[in-house]
Amino acid sequence: MFEKIFANLIDKKPLVQCITNFVTVNDCANIILACGGSPTMAHHKDEVEEIAACCQSLVLNMGTVSDIEAMILAGKKCNKLNIPVVIDPVGMGASELRNKTFNELSKNIHFSVIRGNISEIKRIATGKGSTTGVDANEMDKITENNIYEVAHMAKELSKKMDSIVVISGPIDVVSDKTTAYIIRNGHPIMSRITGSGCMSTALLGAFCGANKDNMLEASAAAVAAMGVCGELAQKKMKIAEGGTMTFRMFLIDYISIMTSEMINKEINIETI
Amino acid sequence: MFEKIFANLIDKKPLVQCITNFVTVNDCANIILACGGSPTMAHHKDEVEEIAACCQSLVLNMGTVSDIEAMILAGKKCNKLNIPVVIDPVGMGASELRNKTFNELSKNIHFSVIRGNISEIKRIATGKGSTTGVDANEMDKITENNIYEVAHMAKELSKKMDSIVVISGPIDVVSDKTTAYIIRNGHPIMSRITGSGCMSTALLGAFCGANKDNMLEASAAAVAAMGVCGELAQKKMKIAEGGTMTFRMFLIDYISIMTSEMINKEINIETI
Amino acid sequence: MFEKIFANLIDKKPLVQCITNFVTVNDCANIILACGGSPTMAHHKDEVEEIAACCQSLVLNMGTVSDIEAMILAGKKCNKLNIPVVIDPVGMGASELRNKTFNELSKNIHFSVIRGNISEIKRIATGKGSTTGVDANEMDKITENNIYEVAHMAKELSKKMDSIVVISGPIDVVSDKTTAYIIRNGHPIMSRITGSGCMSTALLGAFCGANKDNMLEASAAAVAAMGVCGELAQKKMKIAEGGTMTFRMFLIDYISIMTSEMINKEINIETI
Repeated sequence: MFEKIFANLIDKKPLVQCITNFVTVNDCANIILACGGSPTMAHHKDEVEEIAACCQSLVLNMGTVSDIEAMILAGKKCNKLNIPVVIDPVGMGASELRNKTFNELSKNIHFSVIRGNISEIKRIATGKGSTTGVDANEMDKITENNIYEVAHMAKELSKKMDSIVVISGPIDVVSDKTTAYIIRNGHPIMSRITGSGCMSTALLGAFCGANKDNMLEASAAAVAAMGVCGELAQKKMKIAEGGTMTFRMFLIDYISIMTSEMINKEINIETI
Repeated sequence: MFEKIFANLIDKKPLVQCITNFVTVNDCANIILACGGSPTMAHHKDEVEEIAACCQSLVLNMGTVSDIEAMILAGKKCNKLNIPVVIDPVGMGASELRNKTFNELSKNIHFSVIRGNISEIKRIATGKGSTTGVDANEMDKITENNIYEVAHMAKELSKKMDSIVVISGPIDVVSDKTTAYIIRNGHPIMSRITGSGCMSTALLGAFCGANKDNMLEASAAAVAAMGVCGELAQKKMKIAEGGTMTFRMFLIDYISIMTSEMINKEINIETI
Repeated sequence: MFEKIFANLIDKKPLVQCITNFVTVNDCANIILACGGSPTMAHHKDEVEEIAACCQSLVLNMGTVSDIEAMILAGKKCNKLNIPVVIDPVGMGASELRNKTFNELSKNIHFSVIRGNISEIKRIATGKGSTTGVDANEMDKITENNIYEVAHMAKELSKKMDSIVVISGPIDVVSDKTTAYIIRNGHPIMSRITGSGCMSTALLGAFCGANKDNMLEASAAAVAAMGVCGELAQKKMKIAEGGTMTFRMFLIDYISIMTSEMINKEINIETI
């Protein structure tokens, strides 16, 4: 699967605008370039609309809760021009400021895709729950025991927000209103580098930007790519007797050389 | 030594809030993750108190002299909640703005640990001397000839500020009011990457956050870890025929796989 | 050639102040350190003049169109003190804001060196043309068919701006009013990492800072160094079966161990 999705990514070389946090901005730019896209991290409110109008997608990342005015301007512009908007509600539930900010964004912008960890998504879906720092709460953790419940929540939230919902974790979920993909790839070491989540969101931006007419499958492909490349990178890191930074390098390396065949060979995906 | 310190780090997985500069923020987040902690780089003044209240430690880094208001809010909150605050007075003495900023911070916040290079610490201790850029002045350089004098200065400053004082350089000093550790580890190549100092401070945050009741030993352990991993990384880099970026990767790699045994095997520490 | 240029770089260890974007700031600091310089990324308007006065060069990078006031203050100070100023007009032509910003900067500051891709430079030279994102337009691409025309434009712009003009692309041009170097080094993979351009500009800052009396040759050396190290890094990456991040690491690695002999062995340079 995903042959067409990957082919479009290479053909269209989507320009992806990211208004994102300064912690992982370099990783996000590099992973977009690695997968075949072209990033622009323009975030000044006086130019984001003009830049957004040339892009194939827009990625908004709440990581440092800044540039909110620019996000709204760019998001509205993209909505008007039918350009996909992907949001990463980093730390949703960790502070009142973040909750308010997400509400403000969602009141003004329609999101094509929402990607977060289980605690962040739960908070959006239920208005309850909290996160500490940027990781999901331990008690929220996705396991084989609750995965179908989680997928159900994703579908419901998809209906409510009219967005594709992506939940990252030990098991990943990619869902629209009727179909959910459950993807069992990736490796725990991914949570030991900063930016795994942000990079996933950036990839979603590139994949959806190049596949505007098939964003559910494009989102599943992006999530699968991240998971499979994470597994391959972890194996290569082990052989190299490296640690977390070697892992990060190999992860983006694999994204830069991946093909749909490579992903399909390792993918573990279930449709419900 | 340090067995308990390392065990606490793994057990407690301390959440470390960093209000830091945008130059090395990614390295700082990654080294905190590598050593077993969990970083949050939240720095918006409207949320830092709320986030700080959930953390095990707070790291303040003056690198780009920004977010000072947020630093004061977060620092005061941590002081009230008895959460350790670690400060890195980057470039102290390099501009009037930095001198003023440090004074402003130190008037409002009690620091558990102050870490800087010899020029920065000297400036704090004496109100005199200057730095150019972010490196220590050549004439201040720590050598075997002045190391006991430097350690004495650290003790005196510790008394004055009621803080543990860490001085980084060719020889490192970790001191409270009565005891100073002199640590002869590390490698000159550490000064050929950006962020060596900032990463040391981030490590101090994680180690102290997990070892609130024994911060002097925790600080010595963090400094020793950085030094020993620096030596190991330099050796591995040489074998790989790499350069400064390979070195940086291996440095954080080693932090991600280190054990107290590994550090103890290579540590060169003197107590005075 | 370039023996004296490289010797000066090592001898003088130039302090380079960068007021730059947050996307590639870490890469820029690291490449300056790698080549033998010392970076300071101070960008607060209340200290940039004081810091600039201690520096050997100033690098201004318009990547995220921020800190313009600080850029003007630092630039004017450097002009007064005869310290070289290097400008990277990132995304020139991509938005009205960027065009205005460059005009504002160039009205207030004399640049020793202007470095951009062909679309950015064309826009400055002609006031026409546009860029999408941060890459040069396909139709502007430098080839063997238009390279002498491009070099001519560089010379003309050099006369107009009284600056050395550096145009980066598949073929690079380094020109003053009378002499243009055409450099055929580098590798296409350099455009698949973020920061290739910004790092080139940072290198120019270090090379010119250490060679104030011979900035044309220093600029050619910096561009050749980037190109040759890019080729070497690509070859090493291929052997390691890596991807774009391995490439980036090896690129800066080579900058950290390069010598004039290494560069001269691989350089492909033409003078017109």
